[in-house]
Amino acid sequence: MRDGRIEQVGKGSSDSADVVVNGHGKIVLPGLINAHTHLSMCLFRGYADDMVLQDWLRKKIWPLEGKLTGEACYQGALLGAAEMILSGTTTFMDMYFYMEDVAKAVNEAGLRAFLSYGMIDIFDPAKTPIERKKSEELFNFIQQLGVSRIRFALAPHAPYTCSAETLLWAKEFAEKNDTLIHIHIAETRKEQADFQKQHNLRVVEYLDKIGALSRKMVGAHCVWLTKSEVGLLAKASASATHCPVSNMKLASGGVAPLPEMFDAGVAVSLGTDGAASNNTLDMFETMKVCALLHKAHRWDPTILNAQRVLDLATIEGARALGMEAQIGSIDVGKRADIILLDANQPNLNPIYGPDTVVSDLVYSASSGNVNTTIIDGQVLMENRQLKTIDLSSTLASAKELVNRFSAG
Amino acid sequence: MRDGRIEQVGKGSSDSADVVVNGHGKIVLPGLINAHTHLSMCLFRGYADDMVLQDWLRKKIWPLEGKLTGEACYQGALLGAAEMILSGTTTFMDMYFYMEDVAKAVNEAGLRAFLSYGMIDIFDPAKTPIERKKSEELFNFIQQLGVSRIRFALAPHAPYTCSAETLLWAKEFAEKNDTLIHIHIAETRKEQADFQKQHNLRVVEYLDKIGALSRKMVGAHCVWLTKSEVGLLAKASASATHCPVSNMKLASGGVAPLPEMFDAGVAVSLGTDGAASNNTLDMFETMKVCALLHKAHRWDPTILNAQRVLDLATIEGARALGMEAQIGSIDVGKRADIILLDANQPNLNPIYGPDTVVSDLVYSASSGNVNTTIIDGQVLMENRQLKTIDLSSTLASAKELVNRFSAG
Repeated sequence: MRDGRIEQVGKGSSDSADVVVNGHGKIVLPGLINAHTHLSMCLFRGYADDMVLQDWLRKKIWPLEGKLTGEACYQGALLGAAEMILSGTTTFMDMYFYMEDVAKAVNEAGLRAFLSYGMIDIFDPAKTPIERKKSEELFNFIQQLGVSRIRFALAPHAPYTCSAETLLWAKEFAEKNDTLIHIHIAETRKEQADFQKQHNLRVVEYLDKIGALSRKMVGAHCVWLTKSEVGLLAKASASATHCPVSNMKLASGGVAPLPEMFDAGVAVSLGTDGAASNNTLDMFETMKVCALLHKAHRWDPTILNAQRVLDLATIEGARALGMEAQIGSIDVGKRADIILLDANQPNLNPIYGPDTVVSDLVYSASSGNVNTTIIDGQVLMENRQLKTIDLSSTLASAKELVNRFSAG
Repeated sequence: MRDGRIEQVGKGSSDSADVVVNGHGKIVLPGLINAHTHLSMCLFRGYADDMVLQDWLRKKIWPLEGKLTGEACYQGALLGAAEMILSGTTTFMDMYFYMEDVAKAVNEAGLRAFLSYGMIDIFDPAKTPIERKKSEELFNFIQQLGVSRIRFALAPHAPYTCSAETLLWAKEFAEKNDTLIHIHIAETRKEQADFQKQHNLRVVEYLDKIGALSRKMVGAHCVWLTKSEVGLLAKASASATHCPVSNMKLASGGVAPLPEMFDAGVAVSLGTDGAASNNTLDMFETMKVCALLHKAHRWDPTILNAQRVLDLATIEGARALGMEAQIGSIDVGKRADIILLDANQPNLNPIYGPDTVVSDLVYSASSGNVNTTIIDGQVLMENRQLKTIDLSSTLASAKELVNRFSAG
């Protein structure tokens, strides 16, 4: 590694390296990519589960979100960053509020991220410019921050919460400024049903008709799509982020049509969604559940193999975010985003050989096997010890915030 | 704790305790119960995945099983025992071959177990007495071992691999000697379809008709049951072991009818199945996937809540194994089978309070959070260090065995 890049791959000499990490007894892997989350929602982890989606939002999550501050989101982001680093995620795409505070936390933590402010204008023309402005402010903030690890993305929250004006503005802004568009698409059956009632079009048909689809678009969830909608995403070169754990836990029903997306050439990434709905940011868990869900759903154990699933969390995830030249594999010239797993754990043994190790990583590994996490050549965690985050102070802050939330 | 029993619960003095474990910053939980596995199959972990069940068995698993020896099964059992202790399982029910060797490993490891020899007579009258004899030998071996943690169980492998004679002998033996009957029931659709073709009865209807159902019976899988078959299990006071990860991974199709079992009063436990088909023995993973599967399948996030799932892995699991007076909860007089989780990990924070901690355990916890595992008052693992198993020698033996298997 040199200047955060991978300089050489193989059993080379480490004489000229800046940092030497002991890789003996370790499995080396590109860092995992979590393409959809709401980092600061880690503060709501475990607060309300086993509820119907609308009750959960209205009675539990929205009232708590009303109490959020920039400082709270900063602390929540540090908590989530600690979890991601400990579980081997090196790049993530976020959508939430108080994103300047989130950016500060992510910068300190050393993670690679796309950060977006969730614009919701609920079709109110008065709100449209306010939401735009917040996105522009975040864009400027991240420009001024000048940290290459941290990139801006736009986030019109969803087609059912944003006017066509906001969606089209996002497309134009994204083209002009070369940024991604992070958006929720067709998460639930109700969303599709309501949308059809209102617009006489399905969600992606509508996006296509108003001209909002874009090669910059990264659609989270994409559960309730028809083959024709998958075709529209492919035609626009938009990508999709599959969030199997969140979809199952919230009982969204249905299963994202991954095989159809693969056939159509839609780039697919994996995401955890926020910790309020998952309740972890654990990409090892998400990889395994992804494989299990599709095998069970299609009654076909061959529908999604371990290599494909690992690709979704690494090189395909990178492609979906337009970053395949920089991250997603361990190759000379790419950023040094690398994780090491402790191969001497019982759950990872025996290892039959290089052919089966991918299977071990997807079906047998757990986040606790991650021993070292490196981003841009910087060691953020080694021997399960965080190096950039003061964990005890972060946990204490989270506890304090819970007390504040509970106080009413 | 005294003599392996829980003597007192609460913030008591520890002056008279034999062993003092520092519980500060820990979550205390009864040890988890894994009611269906094939421990020594840990040796086949990752060897063959993403295959159709019959190919997987015929081309991969059976040829390798032909190479097994008692020593191999002993080493495989130690490997699995290490994984279970590190992931918080304290009691398990096993079915495999060379069970005397497995018993030795389990005894050394300090786990609590029901051990059974998988009888398969494939309706060959010549084989029936041979299989019986092997079970009787194991029964005698465990009697002579005289370790209260280790109990014998009978295991007629399945109704499609065992004659009625074997099934009825098992029932009689179980009643006479007060042992459990461990059996596979209705794992796949093919099994039910083939069974109906051959017997003109569904699997559980057949067991009922020949008089083989029993209050001692613990049926693994029970995926493809009708409501009427669930009713027959309930009437016989038989119990069922749900193995969600294995069923999904092998694409058995269908989902075990848990809500119907609850309604009918069938005791339900959870199991991982063997590491060749899961590929872990991780009960935290199994708990979460259990909740996810049923919520997604029924389109209802309330169908199975966190408390119910945790119960299946603890007190309900104990009930299913007829052990609710001894294990499954932390109560005075019960065996001291206790695990401690490190509450200072990001993925377990924040904790909103005693009401939500169950949610944290089922949806947020991972096996790596387990800090201490105690069985019968003996500390088997503390600070993630195994105390009864020499891990490096166990891993070396597994590696050696893989070389031997691969050598042909």
